[in-house]
Amino acid sequence: MAAERLVVIGGDAAGMSAASQARRLKGPDELEIIAFERSAFTSYSACGIPYWVSGDVEGPDDLIARTPEEHRERDIDLRMRTEVTEIDVAGRRVRALDRESGDAYWTGFDKLVIATGARPVRPELPGIDAPGVHGVQTLGDGQALLDSLDAVGSGSGKTRRAVVVGAGYIGVEMAEAMLKRGFEVTVLNRGEQPMATLDPDMGKLVHDAMDGLGITTVNGASVTKILTGPDGRVSEVATEERTYPADVVVLGIGVEPEAELAREAGLTVGPHGGILTDLAMRAVGHENVWAGGDCVEVLDLVAGRSRHIALGTHANKHGQVIGSNVGGGYGTFPGVVGTAVSKVCDLEIARTGLREKDARAVGLRYVTATIESTQRAGYYPGAKPMTVKMIAELRTGRLLGVQIVGREGSAKRVDVAAVALTAGMTVEQMTALDLGYAPPFSPVWDPVLVAARKTVAAVRGAGS
Amino acid sequence: MAAERLVVIGGDAAGMSAASQARRLKGPDELEIIAFERSAFTSYSACGIPYWVSGDVEGPDDLIARTPEEHRERDIDLRMRTEVTEIDVAGRRVRALDRESGDAYWTGFDKLVIATGARPVRPELPGIDAPGVHGVQTLGDGQALLDSLDAVGSGSGKTRRAVVVGAGYIGVEMAEAMLKRGFEVTVLNRGEQPMATLDPDMGKLVHDAMDGLGITTVNGASVTKILTGPDGRVSEVATEERTYPADVVVLGIGVEPEAELAREAGLTVGPHGGILTDLAMRAVGHENVWAGGDCVEVLDLVAGRSRHIALGTHANKHGQVIGSNVGGGYGTFPGVVGTAVSKVCDLEIARTGLREKDARAVGLRYVTATIESTQRAGYYPGAKPMTVKMIAELRTGRLLGVQIVGREGSAKRVDVAAVALTAGMTVEQMTALDLGYAPPFSPVWDPVLVAARKTVAAVRGAGS
Repeated sequence: MAAERLVVIGGDAAGMSAASQARRLKGPDELEIIAFERSAFTSYSACGIPYWVSGDVEGPDDLIARTPEEHRERDIDLRMRTEVTEIDVAGRRVRALDRESGDAYWTGFDKLVIATGARPVRPELPGIDAPGVHGVQTLGDGQALLDSLDAVGSGSGKTRRAVVVGAGYIGVEMAEAMLKRGFEVTVLNRGEQPMATLDPDMGKLVHDAMDGLGITTVNGASVTKILTGPDGRVSEVATEERTYPADVVVLGIGVEPEAELAREAGLTVGPHGGILTDLAMRAVGHENVWAGGDCVEVLDLVAGRSRHIALGTHANKHGQVIGSNVGGGYGTFPGVVGTAVSKVCDLEIARTGLREKDARAVGLRYVTATIESTQRAGYYPGAKPMTVKMIAELRTGRLLGVQIVGREGSAKRVDVAAVALTAGMTVEQMTALDLGYAPPFSPVWDPVLVAARKTVAAVRGAGS
Repeated sequence: MAAERLVVIGGDAAGMSAASQARRLKGPDELEIIAFERSAFTSYSACGIPYWVSGDVEGPDDLIARTPEEHRERDIDLRMRTEVTEIDVAGRRVRALDRESGDAYWTGFDKLVIATGARPVRPELPGIDAPGVHGVQTLGDGQALLDSLDAVGSGSGKTRRAVVVGAGYIGVEMAEAMLKRGFEVTVLNRGEQPMATLDPDMGKLVHDAMDGLGITTVNGASVTKILTGPDGRVSEVATEERTYPADVVVLGIGVEPEAELAREAGLTVGPHGGILTDLAMRAVGHENVWAGGDCVEVLDLVAGRSRHIALGTHANKHGQVIGSNVGGGYGTFPGVVGTAVSKVCDLEIARTGLREKDARAVGLRYVTATIESTQRAGYYPGAKPMTVKMIAELRTGRLLGVQIVGREGSAKRVDVAAVALTAGMTVEQMTALDLGYAPPFSPVWDPVLVAARKTVAAVRGAGS
């Protein structure tokens, strides 16, 4: 019998990264690892589902980074389709329910990792459970949507209509996927512009570009009801203004932390509903309980406040840090700056740091500058426009955020700003950054540098 | 008459950026600007010449950022084909020679900008001046090479052979250009591996990839002689070992600072032959003389020593800083970290910071780690391999350098490391960087983060 037992709740990115890293540091004699996963899948790329639906990626196997069997080969006692229904922190035990057999039992732990993920926001609308209405968070969701597309058929000449509810990352990616599947696509967006993670002026560029791709985006559209046809399948989506015919409806409204279990166990939950942790990813106030992935809140290093960001790359980092700490090593997750990249066909969208409204929310005064450039030297083949918006603190010129909308080769340039934000650079310091230059890769002034120069001018021009 | 006169020597990137920026800040009443350019071109992209030769870019007009006329419209008295032959610093005057008329004259200045650029290294080899042997530094060089290619002809079935001497940036870019022009290409490289700006282990990857593209690279090849045929044109290139048939020879051996004029005028020149300046780009010890572009040495922020780097992006920054200072504003150029990106067909090459030998040269002890990953999620279409090598200081883990060899979408990721170097980050800090993630743009662990993690392990494993 091992000296200690680690129990992991949730078998996706954060949980299984933690388990794997802990196993790397401690063998089975030292550490027994039991992991509970309520679904039939482990360690999969939810971010890849839109590309599976679009047909770009073979699924679902390609999206699974590590199968249950692979985890078990590493001496992790992984119990699939087994849901943890209660955490007894003081008693150091969790109650598990085997969803196949219906058996329920208590399992003790010395160390606990909570990685329960997030659940999609699912508005309580009439008709939301009708056949043909699909979320896209799990591999099961992806398969159900694909089956639904088959059910709609692809008879020649027949116009097939998809309505995507929500115009955030999942919404726009699913708009691309449905377009590639040959559907006429309408995106119903509650907000002022698509991509509410951008400022509206940059969201407008996304709107226009999506228009150019043949995707109709309706802003300010609040869905009130989903209507069904005589066959019981979805037939229309109603907003306050009108109805939109729909053979299939994709819900891409975002997610919220799945932290009920932790909350009921008395763990501290933050303003956004996520579990709060320290830098070592320990649940605050609990020496032997860690939490990571989509169920936690993270520190926004720019705003100095906690936020909830559901993103696989953070979940993997959390798992790595937790596994190191559980395994007797050390690691910290200092926080995020809020970087995200996405694309709709060849349109690339990126952001990091604060939007204008985020800056206002934390009481920062700021200036902005927006520039247009190209991702390659203007004369080089394939040079295409990209727009960069930069936000800096008034007076100090500290970088606060960057947003990019452009074509191929634009989005990942946001990483430069992500590092600069992490380092607390001013936009003036950024103007001197030694970024790679050659005509196939950049104009002689990299677009990020052009934006920094214009922002410096705005900081100086704004006085104090 | 203006209150002050600015004289600029050299009408390319640094000189004309300085002139333009000074003009933005001061009108003709305040500041007269006279600029001397000995060639027939201003403000052109020398970096674009390989793509003009390859046929990717229409030249030479597309490579000219601003014509003499455009500069003159901004009240800059630009004197083309006029060479400055002497600087009288104490007497505040320069002697100019009009190469058209042969007239020579003195012109006084209040402020002087020296932007004399660099000259290609041209080894003294028998036959180096034969028709068919070409440098590629100026637009004139590019046109001469293109004319030479026409002279070789393109008779069907005839094998046309190009020998490129040198395997640095210009060498590999010209290898691509000649390949695209239908030549059989041999690159003669004096060093151990191509791309001596990389460590040899990474240069080896470039060698193998060039091989795969059909470009023959001969390492350790010292050219001894260039032989000509009965028509007087180049026919063969001889090394110590053998000869290589050649219809055309391209010299891509690098450049050195064109600082003779400054040296003769008593300005301070550094160990690499470039003019030394302070952070404001003032020639050291001279209140009213500035220097920038390919004729100066710059501070390497990682090594803490001066180096010579001829690169348009630096020249533009220098010009911007000088123009601001001349015009009564302020600006500084803090230095470089040594970032460079390049490509050969779809192979991308990037580097920043120190190579192993650079670290040794400045007495730093270090560890390295090399990882292989892909630029997109492994399952996403177009995912292709990229290799990242990272160098960090022993014990402290301070990032010292990064080298990347990969396919489309690899090279510009080096910018993340460039910013991290500028900020003095450790590789451990880098593991937590919030870089953009989505399957079309990156695996869930960005390759730079994977390299950082492995380098952290190397730092820890190496002890002290």
